[in-house]
This record gives sequence, structure tokens and C-alpha cells, in this order.
Amino acid sequence: MTSTGHGRSTSGITMRDVAKVAGVSVATVSHVVNDKPGARIGDDARRRVHEAVTELGYRPNALAKTLSQGTSRFIGLVADAIATTPFAGQIIHGAQDEAWKHGYVLLVANTDGNTAAEDEAIMMMLEHQVRGILYSTWYHHEITVPEALHQTDTVLVDCFAGGSGLPAVVPDEEQGGRSATEALLAAGHRRIAFINTTTPSPAQSGRLAGYRSALESAGLDFDESLVFPASPEQEGGYTATASIVDSRATAVFCHNDRVAMGLYDGLRERGLRIPDDMAVMGFDNQDVIAAHLRPPLSTVALPHYELGAAGVRRLLGLETPSTTHPQLIACPPIQRHSI
Amino acid sequence: MTSTGHGRSTSGITMRDVAKVAGVSVATVSHVVNDKPGARIGDDARRRVHEAVTELGYRPNALAKTLSQGTSRFIGLVADAIATTPFAGQIIHGAQDEAWKHGYVLLVANTDGNTAAEDEAIMMMLEHQVRGILYSTWYHHEITVPEALHQTDTVLVDCFAGGSGLPAVVPDEEQGGRSATEALLAAGHRRIAFINTTTPSPAQSGRLAGYRSALESAGLDFDESLVFPASPEQEGGYTATASIVDSRATAVFCHNDRVAMGLYDGLRERGLRIPDDMAVMGFDNQDVIAAHLRPPLSTVALPHYELGAAGVRRLLGLETPSTTHPQLIACPPIQRHSI
Repeated sequence: MTSTGHGRSTSGITMRDVAKVAGVSVATVSHVVNDKPGARIGDDARRRVHEAVTELGYRPNALAKTLSQGTSRFIGLVADAIATTPFAGQIIHGAQDEAWKHGYVLLVANTDGNTAAEDEAIMMMLEHQVRGILYSTWYHHEITVPEALHQTDTVLVDCFAGGSGLPAVVPDEEQGGRSATEALLAAGHRRIAFINTTTPSPAQSGRLAGYRSALESAGLDFDESLVFPASPEQEGGYTATASIVDSRATAVFCHNDRVAMGLYDGLRERGLRIPDDMAVMGFDNQDVIAAHLRPPLSTVALPHYELGAAGVRRLLGLETPSTTHPQLIACPPIQRHSI
Repeated sequence: MTSTGHGRSTSGITMRDVAKVAGVSVATVSHVVNDKPGARIGDDARRRVHEAVTELGYRPNALAKTLSQGTSRFIGLVADAIATTPFAGQIIHGAQDEAWKHGYVLLVANTDGNTAAEDEAIMMMLEHQVRGILYSTWYHHEITVPEALHQTDTVLVDCFAGGSGLPAVVPDEEQGGRSATEALLAAGHRRIAFINTTTPSPAQSGRLAGYRSALESAGLDFDESLVFPASPEQEGGYTATASIVDSRATAVFCHNDRVAMGLYDGLRERGLRIPDDMAVMGFDNQDVIAAHLRPPLSTVALPHYELGAAGVRRLLGLETPSTTHPQLIACPPIQRHSI
């Protein structure tokens, strides 16, 4: 590959050059290079074109190729704030790895909730004839689907839209809540509190359902007075500490790692040790926090990487679940030292 | 705009349709639509084409337009791990906002240090004739420039390559270190410790230089015994606590917020209060941590958003600093409650 020095073209070699060396017409080169179905090219001509392409280092212009084929090797990822919040970036990582594996480049547009920017990003992607679009949010919730997404193949990632008919890939909140509670049960705890978020969401209802189901499977009654609502961040966990201590629970399942971090502070101020005086389980396995608390926090991971990868597989038709419900991705428990 | 229902084309109207309605040749429509310089088209024909375009709702195919113009409306962002680490995502945010402002779409490829993926991403971008490429890293350091980047306009963001001749935009580490130290001096502290990273980097040397210069401007001698090396994360700050307490410093400037978070734990275990017994200053203004520690951490912000935005402005030639050195972006101090 040579540079023109203007940085705009990746090769000075044209199709005409290839045709000349191969002794065929430009149209023949075009048909062979673009692998046009139905074009009748003799084996000999085809061979000579391939030889000339190799000899000259000809690299077909990707755009011209796209035009002739009708779709590009792009997959679009329209995200609300995934790239810009310190949380769900692994969705991009997973989508990107899976896209690359199948020869696609992931084109990411992060719109930060700006509807106009979002519409324009989707339009640009449609104009550039992407193979399809992943529409993704930085936390799991129900969305209203932008109208333009119906113009191409779309998969919703970490979100869903009931009645839209669009396939969706989301974390299995209930299994996650069950796994978190089971880890505390396995350590011998019987009186387990749950600090749940005050924000209505699939995480709020799903993790609660999992907590209940784990208790019931262990033969324990669900006790509503052990469920404490709190804002889903450090301040919420810190504030909940007094109620947790009063509840005589020996273990706490926290809605997320940030809540657990605040609870750590609250327990420490009271001279209580983790896990000796109180076992703590988080949720999310949030980078920067979970592994670095004292003691390192046992938690359940949100499967961001897997969500992105599964979204791409779904888009490319490599995975076709029999259900029309959102496809659930498992939330694996991570064992550290707070239980 | 109409949909073909196949989601691959944004309009069923072709250039041929426009030509027919306008009563001109397809070539004339192409010249007018693509605003080709040097094409001699009569005013009347030009007007009729524009009218037909409006009447029919014709939308030129973005790829065809790109081909005729030689560059696309894409700006590439090749990142090592920006999108996938909970840290520097605001670089994407800033670059994206600035790109949109000038009519460009940011195409992000996050390569996670995989050189093959990186090379291929750059090649793809070159084939798609991007306007130029921002090459960016999730933390400030010197890099070796991938060969292919010399084939297009490139700006390095949050990294630099001495002798490469490529423009670079980086945070002003020295000013940041000075601002951090000045905030502690302004609160009346005279014996100020510095927990610096053990990792050689512009942040290590720049923040130290800023710390020294602030002390010297305040008429205080630099005392090397007050500089404590530590790994740049919570564990490093926690481990350094004993030395900090022994040093009789009344204030500490921490290399980053994670170190400060570990130091908080260490001080708390010794029953020391922040800021009464020890004032603490961080660096980075890291989301999820800084604002949510108890007490909320005073710190200096790494200007990730501004780095991305300045990178795009530099690429588009909207900012041309007179110097060939990396362009420095200020790190603003953030006042909370740990001083």
C-alpha cells in the first residue's frame, strides 16, 4: 500500500491499472474485485485479475465497494452515555470484539441524551448504510424507540421496548439478586438485610425478586422489614447504616457497589468490622471500587461485555433465541473478602 | 425522506428522477448536488435542479457524495482503552461534541492495546477517507506512533510522540500540581506531604514540579523527605498512611483520587478526622469517587472533555498554537470539603 502524501487515499493504484496488467476490461476487474454474484467471468480472467491485484498491491476503495454491495462493513452503536460514564464501557468492548471477529467495524455515537444528536447520528448511520444498529443505554431500563431505528435492523442492548417488536439483550437481574443472596446464605447467614434502590427499574424489582426467591428456596420467610430503600449511591448506603444495625441482620445485600461503599463508611464509624460483624455483598462489580475497598467487596457482576457481544451476535443473526422476550444474560457472582 | 422498507437506503429517489423533473442530464444533477468546483452549469439549470431536489425530497447518498469529494464527514478516534475504562470517557464526549459542531461524525475504535486491531482500525478509517484521526490514550504518556497514522492528518490526545512532528494535546500536569498545592497553602498549611506515584510518567514529574514550584513561591523550602512514593491506587494511599502521620505533615497532596481514597481509610483507622486532623487534596476528579467520599474530596480535575474538544479543533485547523510542543490544557481545582 502506498500513500499519495495527501493522506486521503490509501493506494495510488486504480482499477484501470489492474485491468491493463490483467489484460481485461475495467468492468471485469470491478466484477471480480467486488465479487458480484451473477457476473459471468471466465476462470482465466478471474485468475489474471487476482494476480494483478496482488502484484500491484491494489486495494479497492472501501466506499466504492460499499456502494456496489448496498451495505457497509459498519455496525452502528448508538449509546446514550456509555462511553462517557465510568460504568458501562465494557458494552462497547464486547460489541467491538464481536464485530471485529465477523469483519465489521463498530461505529460508536454517544449522544448523551441529546435527542437531536441521536436522530442525526442514526440518520448518518443509515446514509452510510450500516449493517444494523445496536441501541444501548448505560443502565437497564425501558425506552421509547427512536422512529428512525425501524429503518434498519436494530437490537436493543441493556434496554428494551415492550411492544416494539425489537430484539433486546438485558442482564438477568433476578438471577443476579438470587446469586448475591445465595452467597450470603452459603456463608451461614440467616438474617439478611437488603438495601434496595428507591428508583423504579428492572434492577429494583428483579434483584428484589431474586433476594426473595433465594430466601424461600433456603426455607426462610421473606421479611419486608429487612428491605431498606436508599438512593443508589454512597450516600444512600451510609445513611442506611443505622437501620441495618438496628435490624440485627448479620449480612447485607446492597443494591450496588456504591451503596456498599457508603455502608462500609457507616459501619466503620460504628467500630463494626466487615465481614466479622457484618457481611456485605454488592452488585455491579464496578471498576475502581469493588476490588479496592477494605476489605475487597464480594459482589455480582453486571455482564456489560457479554451484553455488547450478544447484541452483535443477535444483529448478525448468529443467535436466534426462540423467545420474543428480552434475552437474559447471566450476572456472575464474584467472591472477594466481605463475606 | 422515505424508507424503502429494507432499511438500506434512506430515499427511493434517484439522481435520474431529479434529472427528469429538472429537464437536465444526470451529469448536471451530479455536478450541482455535489457542488463540483469548475463545473460550468448555467444558473437556470442549477435553479431547476435545486427545485427538483426540493420537490422530490431527493437526498444524495452520503457515500456517493464522499466519493466525489474525496473525504468523508468522519473524524476517526483511535483509542487504546478510553471507552472501556471508567476514567477518560469524557475525551470521547468532548471530541464528539466538537465534531458535531462542525458537521462531522466521530467514528470511535477502541483497540484495548491490541496492535493488530489498531492497525486494522486505522486502515479501515483511511479506506473510509476520514477527515483525520485523533489518536488517544487513557492516561497521559509518550507513545510510539503507528506507521499508518502518517497517511492522514493526525492529532495525539492525552499522549505525545517526541520527534514525530505530530501535534499533541495534553493536560498541564505541572499547573495542576501547583494548583493542588496552592489550595492547601491557601488554607494555612505549611507542612504539606506529597504522595507521588511510583510509575514514571509526565504526571509523576509534572505534578512534583508543580508541588515544588508552589512551595517555593510561598517561600517554603522543598523537603524531599515529605515526598512519599506509592502505587497509584487505593492500596498505595492506605499503605502510605503511617509515613504520612509520622511526617507530622498537616496536609497531603495525593497523586490521584484513588490514592486519597485509600488514605481516607488509613486515617480513619487511626481515628484521625479529615480535614481537622489532616487536610487531603486529590487529583483527577474521578467520577464515582471524588464527590462521594466522606468528606467529599477537594481535587484537581483532569480536563478530559477539553482534551477531546481541543484535539478536534486542532485537527480541523481551528486552533494553531505557535509552539511545536504539546499544547497544554489547564487542570482546574475543584473545592469540596477535605481541606
